[in-house]
Amino acid sequence: MAVSSPSAMDRPAVERRAALPPGFQAGAVAAGIKASGRPDVALILATSGPAAAAAVFTPNAFAAAPVRLSRSNLAVTSDDPRGGFGFASAVVSTSGCANAATGAAGDRDQAEVGRMVAEALGVDELRVLHLSTGIIGARLPLDRVAVGIDAVAQNLRDDDAALEATAEALRTTDSVTKIATTSIALPAEDGEPMPVTVTGIAKGVGMIHPNMATMLSVILTDAPVAPEVLWDLLRPAAARTWNQLSVDGDTSTNDTVFVLASGVAGTAPIAAGSGAAVTLGAAIEAVARDLARQQAADGEGATILITAIATEAVDDIDARAVARAVVSSSLVKAAAHGKDPNWGRIAGAVGNAVTASAAVLEAAGLAPDVAATRGGRPATIDPDRLRVSIAGHPVFDGAQGGPLTFDRAAARAAMDAPELVIELDLGLGDGTGEAFGCDLTEAYVIENSEYTT
Amino acid sequence: MAVSSPSAMDRPAVERRAALPPGFQAGAVAAGIKASGRPDVALILATSGPAAAAAVFTPNAFAAAPVRLSRSNLAVTSDDPRGGFGFASAVVSTSGCANAATGAAGDRDQAEVGRMVAEALGVDELRVLHLSTGIIGARLPLDRVAVGIDAVAQNLRDDDAALEATAEALRTTDSVTKIATTSIALPAEDGEPMPVTVTGIAKGVGMIHPNMATMLSVILTDAPVAPEVLWDLLRPAAARTWNQLSVDGDTSTNDTVFVLASGVAGTAPIAAGSGAAVTLGAAIEAVARDLARQQAADGEGATILITAIATEAVDDIDARAVARAVVSSSLVKAAAHGKDPNWGRIAGAVGNAVTASAAVLEAAGLAPDVAATRGGRPATIDPDRLRVSIAGHPVFDGAQGGPLTFDRAAARAAMDAPELVIELDLGLGDGTGEAFGCDLTEAYVIENSEYTT
Repeated sequence: MAVSSPSAMDRPAVERRAALPPGFQAGAVAAGIKASGRPDVALILATSGPAAAAAVFTPNAFAAAPVRLSRSNLAVTSDDPRGGFGFASAVVSTSGCANAATGAAGDRDQAEVGRMVAEALGVDELRVLHLSTGIIGARLPLDRVAVGIDAVAQNLRDDDAALEATAEALRTTDSVTKIATTSIALPAEDGEPMPVTVTGIAKGVGMIHPNMATMLSVILTDAPVAPEVLWDLLRPAAARTWNQLSVDGDTSTNDTVFVLASGVAGTAPIAAGSGAAVTLGAAIEAVARDLARQQAADGEGATILITAIATEAVDDIDARAVARAVVSSSLVKAAAHGKDPNWGRIAGAVGNAVTASAAVLEAAGLAPDVAATRGGRPATIDPDRLRVSIAGHPVFDGAQGGPLTFDRAAARAAMDAPELVIELDLGLGDGTGEAFGCDLTEAYVIENSEYTT
Repeated sequence: MAVSSPSAMDRPAVERRAALPPGFQAGAVAAGIKASGRPDVALILATSGPAAAAAVFTPNAFAAAPVRLSRSNLAVTSDDPRGGFGFASAVVSTSGCANAATGAAGDRDQAEVGRMVAEALGVDELRVLHLSTGIIGARLPLDRVAVGIDAVAQNLRDDDAALEATAEALRTTDSVTKIATTSIALPAEDGEPMPVTVTGIAKGVGMIHPNMATMLSVILTDAPVAPEVLWDLLRPAAARTWNQLSVDGDTSTNDTVFVLASGVAGTAPIAAGSGAAVTLGAAIEAVARDLARQQAADGEGATILITAIATEAVDDIDARAVARAVVSSSLVKAAAHGKDPNWGRIAGAVGNAVTASAAVLEAAGLAPDVAATRGGRPATIDPDRLRVSIAGHPVFDGAQGGPLTFDRAAARAAMDAPELVIELDLGLGDGTGEAFGCDLTEAYVIENSEYTT
């Protein structure tokens, strides 16, 4: 996790199109899991043998059956008990039913899905990875899933439209399909640069918060890389992107990100710590970041993307904590919705992100367990050094006594845009971090008070 | 913090009336800080010399000027640098202006308020405690505050209506005045039981979350008790009540609870660890709990109180963490608003409260810093043992495979009440805990997107 975040200048350019990397086929179908009749079963097949695979999963104690089975399969194929990396021949996704909180029966159902996929595609069921999303507590309709898997398996294609259909089938309440791709150059064995593609698809709105939540993503690349190296690239990338994303503070039982590398690009194998590994890691992070931003912008009921950028923190960890606190604040989110340049709520959220010291906690009368829930690692902040800008307008400078005089009408006008950038300069060091969120709207409440279990 | 929570049977009965304990006078006036013209300056005077005082304060790094000054004054009067207890002759409250994020100028203003109170009441300015709430970043209108303090000082009274006026003056967006009182019997020097009163007033809606937030309270008693003993009673009571209260996840810069003990009841001095101390602690906790429940029910835009009760946790700390997670979940809050018996969201929130183990976190790809923000102390949960009831209807039993068949229409009907009780039986030990919250409504969003900085 010591890898520092690439600056915006170093970040590979990302396009929002479904460039399917070589070595994969994909497809999707409407199998009737969703009452809406929209696509709900999808497959991705590694066509040149098992792909290197790495994953990050929800930390929710109620990890759903697909999460448990995927972790178990990765552990078996890598002999690493952590279940974070291994080999995978296929990914199956069902949407409309999460297969979460379904107990042992749900585990058996998910294993049956694995066998269906293995049979339909001619692969080892231990090399099938599983994604699902949708209603919690309902059993998978295995008969429909079976018909769907057979139908998709017979129509897998290796064109971009097939990947777009897969992304479409991941969706639940998403209003748009989320896709991002980038192309990088990696050296062949002879040192000549060759193109490598990194493309990600994702779903997710609502229940999204730091540490993943009802959020699924698959990133595919044709780079040749060992599973454990891939995992070591994925984790810091996820920590700086998806774990900095908050829609409503809830996390879910099914969150999963898979990265699969087919290895057919023809470039040299990527060694841990090499320049090629750094390049591939930056590409994965750029794709993850763009998907996370698409997810934040499409939060349930959201009308704008909120980006908080923290600079001059003691370190990157502090910077990320402060940025997360700001995009997670219900009051900041509501103010953003109302185009209110409310620096007071931002300052309050910054102060809430950090527990100044054990002495302060003690003086606050906090029991040790309560202090722990505020975040185990106290971050450092000095109210007299904090500077805050909202949509480009400096509104607060601790060194100048706090609130600044600013043109409120102009700030409000600048906030009337698809993205609101809140800048937080802590004035303490060289740590940087960003976080992504969305405004809190009446529509969020309406959507979530009427959604059926 | 090892004191276990009193069960409902042991809890002293609480009434919602402003019984002013002997040894205090109170009063309030509209001084024009609030644009609305409602009461906004209040005083409480200890009439028999400095009262023993204890406090808990916001842990927000942007602690406002009144918090800093109160902590400093308590430290001076007790010679204890933590600033949690000491002696106080008066409490002053200004509402409409928080005097937060106002820098050194704000500190000077608050000190001036202390001098005004000291002069008007003839007390030591170091023995004045300060409360304020309202707009952040604005300077106190000292001229109006001065006029208000003089007016109140000349009209202090020792009747219940005076305390009710004080409670009224604490309010900002509160829709109701929050008051709770209980009467206990404590032994006189000769062992005969004598009546002692414990009465609290409070304000607070919005920005309320575990660890206090824009939430003020003063509890008054005529019990004779040393400041440090009082502090040791207040902290666990606050941990089980106000720190288990969540309205919207934000915490504020001004949160403060004061307990003042005039000591004029005529009962024997209360020794640490004595039966009398336990009785007084239970009374303070009962009053705090009732005030916290009033605050939750009056959360911004709220239409119902949500109470989560966790039982059979490994310990009380786990139980409180689980209960807090449930009442803090935006999805649970929205479901409560929609009268949706959505046990899936409750299970998700429970799972989110607890991070099963370091191994699971590692497999989830979480960086150590991210893992820390999930709560430094991993709690224990077994999805196969969890049982959940919503409004008295059992809806989930892990041992029976998860979701139960239940009468959805009857559950929805039972949810259509002023209080929703969610019961969580973890099946692991004998730890218990509760937490208080409210539903998330369109009105919350409207109120907070239109509030002016």
